[in-house]
Amino acid sequence: MALIVQKYGGSSLESAERIRAVAKRIVDTHKAGNDVVVVCSAMGDTTDELLDLAAQVNPTPPPREMDMLLTAGERISNSLVAMAIASYGAPVQSFTGSQAGVITTERHGNARILEVTPGRVQDAIDAGKIAIVAGFQGVNRDTRDVTTLGRGGSDTTAVALAAALEADVCEIYSDVDGVYSADPRIVSDAKKLDHLSFEEMLELAASGSKILVLRSVEYARAFNVPMRVRSSYSNDPGTLVSGAMEDIPVEEAVLVGVATDDSEAKITVLGIPDVPGEAAKVFRVLADAEINIDMVLQNTSSLHDNTTDITFTLPIADGPRGMKLLEDLVKREGWQNVTYNDEIAKVSLVGAGMKSHPGVTADFTEALRDKGINIGMLNTSEIRITAVVRRADMEDAAREIHEKFDLGGDEPAVVYAGTGR
Amino acid sequence: MALIVQKYGGSSLESAERIRAVAKRIVDTHKAGNDVVVVCSAMGDTTDELLDLAAQVNPTPPPREMDMLLTAGERISNSLVAMAIASYGAPVQSFTGSQAGVITTERHGNARILEVTPGRVQDAIDAGKIAIVAGFQGVNRDTRDVTTLGRGGSDTTAVALAAALEADVCEIYSDVDGVYSADPRIVSDAKKLDHLSFEEMLELAASGSKILVLRSVEYARAFNVPMRVRSSYSNDPGTLVSGAMEDIPVEEAVLVGVATDDSEAKITVLGIPDVPGEAAKVFRVLADAEINIDMVLQNTSSLHDNTTDITFTLPIADGPRGMKLLEDLVKREGWQNVTYNDEIAKVSLVGAGMKSHPGVTADFTEALRDKGINIGMLNTSEIRITAVVRRADMEDAAREIHEKFDLGGDEPAVVYAGTGR
Repeated sequence: MALIVQKYGGSSLESAERIRAVAKRIVDTHKAGNDVVVVCSAMGDTTDELLDLAAQVNPTPPPREMDMLLTAGERISNSLVAMAIASYGAPVQSFTGSQAGVITTERHGNARILEVTPGRVQDAIDAGKIAIVAGFQGVNRDTRDVTTLGRGGSDTTAVALAAALEADVCEIYSDVDGVYSADPRIVSDAKKLDHLSFEEMLELAASGSKILVLRSVEYARAFNVPMRVRSSYSNDPGTLVSGAMEDIPVEEAVLVGVATDDSEAKITVLGIPDVPGEAAKVFRVLADAEINIDMVLQNTSSLHDNTTDITFTLPIADGPRGMKLLEDLVKREGWQNVTYNDEIAKVSLVGAGMKSHPGVTADFTEALRDKGINIGMLNTSEIRITAVVRRADMEDAAREIHEKFDLGGDEPAVVYAGTGR
Repeated sequence: MALIVQKYGGSSLESAERIRAVAKRIVDTHKAGNDVVVVCSAMGDTTDELLDLAAQVNPTPPPREMDMLLTAGERISNSLVAMAIASYGAPVQSFTGSQAGVITTERHGNARILEVTPGRVQDAIDAGKIAIVAGFQGVNRDTRDVTTLGRGGSDTTAVALAAALEADVCEIYSDVDGVYSADPRIVSDAKKLDHLSFEEMLELAASGSKILVLRSVEYARAFNVPMRVRSSYSNDPGTLVSGAMEDIPVEEAVLVGVATDDSEAKITVLGIPDVPGEAAKVFRVLADAEINIDMVLQNTSSLHDNTTDITFTLPIADGPRGMKLLEDLVKREGWQNVTYNDEIAKVSLVGAGMKSHPGVTADFTEALRDKGINIGMLNTSEIRITAVVRRADMEDAAREIHEKFDLGGDEPAVVYAGTGR
């Protein structure tokens, strides 16, 4: 008998019919002799509808009120799932984030979990009940106000609960039946992966894979909670994400997949005097505006005028704001220029196997060269290589690299409608 | 400077536009120098939509989960109203029923308020903020679970908060601009009343007036909280409900109005032996089934066989269930028969002025006789006369009595769309 935490995304709960199907799965898992704790996202488009209402009422709503509003969505799905489970005759009790002991920082809209004290959830489990917990929400330790956890919050709730309850596994259900070696919509022979390490999953998530939110994987790694990515439409065992990279024997380490990301733009600041402290001004002005930058590349100093250039990527959504700040900076400092390009994409290759194969970077760059694809920026970590290419080349680049490293499978990829969150 | 509690019904909050209009009114009240606490119902049809979803998922949902579901509706309207107020630049803070200290019994779906400890609300007021409280909901003292207060729950929340905060007045906003001397849809010259006592309002509510829920008026009378019935569409001062009947000088006591009610059915149990304890069996069987009965009339014993008949009214919704129980009882006891009639209506005349006018009952019955309307049952209290008539006669009876006692006004009645709750 195991303790299983299951998290269901909004598209798995978008109608009464889907909620009943999910409830059936939960009840079956419980009947099989497991203790089950379920974390629910809001139904289908509920969150978007509430955001839309809020925008009509106040374009810049107070964050505390926004959290009160949005958490209603998870309370609705939460109680409906509990009702559906009860209709199958199984014992069940639902909990809000607060009732489940999800204690957070006070930062409304993007709170961090400080601790989880799931005494009431544990009591329900001990009484033989299925426990249903509203995802995405917690309660501020100091003010007892309701908070939300930001993007991917329900995944994080599930992992944090699994850690606090010392669950055997945290299953994340969505429309996709696992983690693939590439986006099956781009690479037709993408292969479902049976198992990968936390580090590999982290690199995939950071490189654009949408299947798991980076933050939830970081949490799972920190508390060593095995995660399993599964589809709420099938009984496929899905993909297990667990274990440290160090635990993988060298001869078993492989390249797990290709990730693509076309959500970023590239900014280049030209003609920065190559003396200490000048380049830092670029990063300071962006940090003060809470703009996260991703890949950074500083060219070596130009010998004839002793200046340097800095290139970095950032979310397209922050592009215009970042450019405004940097144009002001360049003018103020008398630097040469700043340029913007949002027609780019990142293509990444990830896998622990990279460590034992020194030629991977060479093969990677040659694959793109053979296809006539120009590399704008290149960046590597211990288990990842990322190239920035023109967005128009992204899909070709992903297919080429997937092919070059022989990552494909024999079975066709299974893709369901929508994208679970 | 006064402390004003305002309660807005669902139809006043059914869209973003309406929410902004309500917010404007709240901000204006606050700017005029008042402390303001607002209680919100769920938006428009939200509660019905949630009930419908629940029915699809489980026809007999667990009451605890139902309360978790339904309270989401008030949390949504609550936070949206707070956002709208913030958009006008006014300081505001929203509270759930639990955060506002609404402590209840554990009876899910129909909890009673045990006490209100609005420390956080008072702090917000003291800090100059407008406080917004989700209506209809509280928290069980023992388990800390969310509860709902049943029908008219938001009115009751508002009155209970007003009592705990020692507010100067509790304003109940809906689509109607006050309490009328009759339903304006039935009696065209119905007059808006400026003021009536708690007892008169209680009798009107108990006799079928929908404008205020009986329970909230009982609460207001117990804590002596003046209530004001107003429209969220106009600046009319509405109707003040306050003070004890005893405080009204005899010469100012008037007949306030006519109420109609076609939501009840009539049951007659025939041939009950006229010995102690037999009639009680009828009421016991209904009480055990939690069926509330209203008007009761026991005929004097029939001399030739020493039996009696009992007639009473009950909600039509409980009619079939009540009949089944009584048919079984009559068969078991060997009584004569039980009959059912749901083509009835109650017409009531209410007013403290009745006490000083001994001829009112005579005038009341003669008015109906002159119109050829037969009286099925008759029942009186100190300030009310109620006749049960055929439903087809209800409107004529109301008009006739309204005319007979000269209750009409000169100004046309103002009726807005919908019926606020």
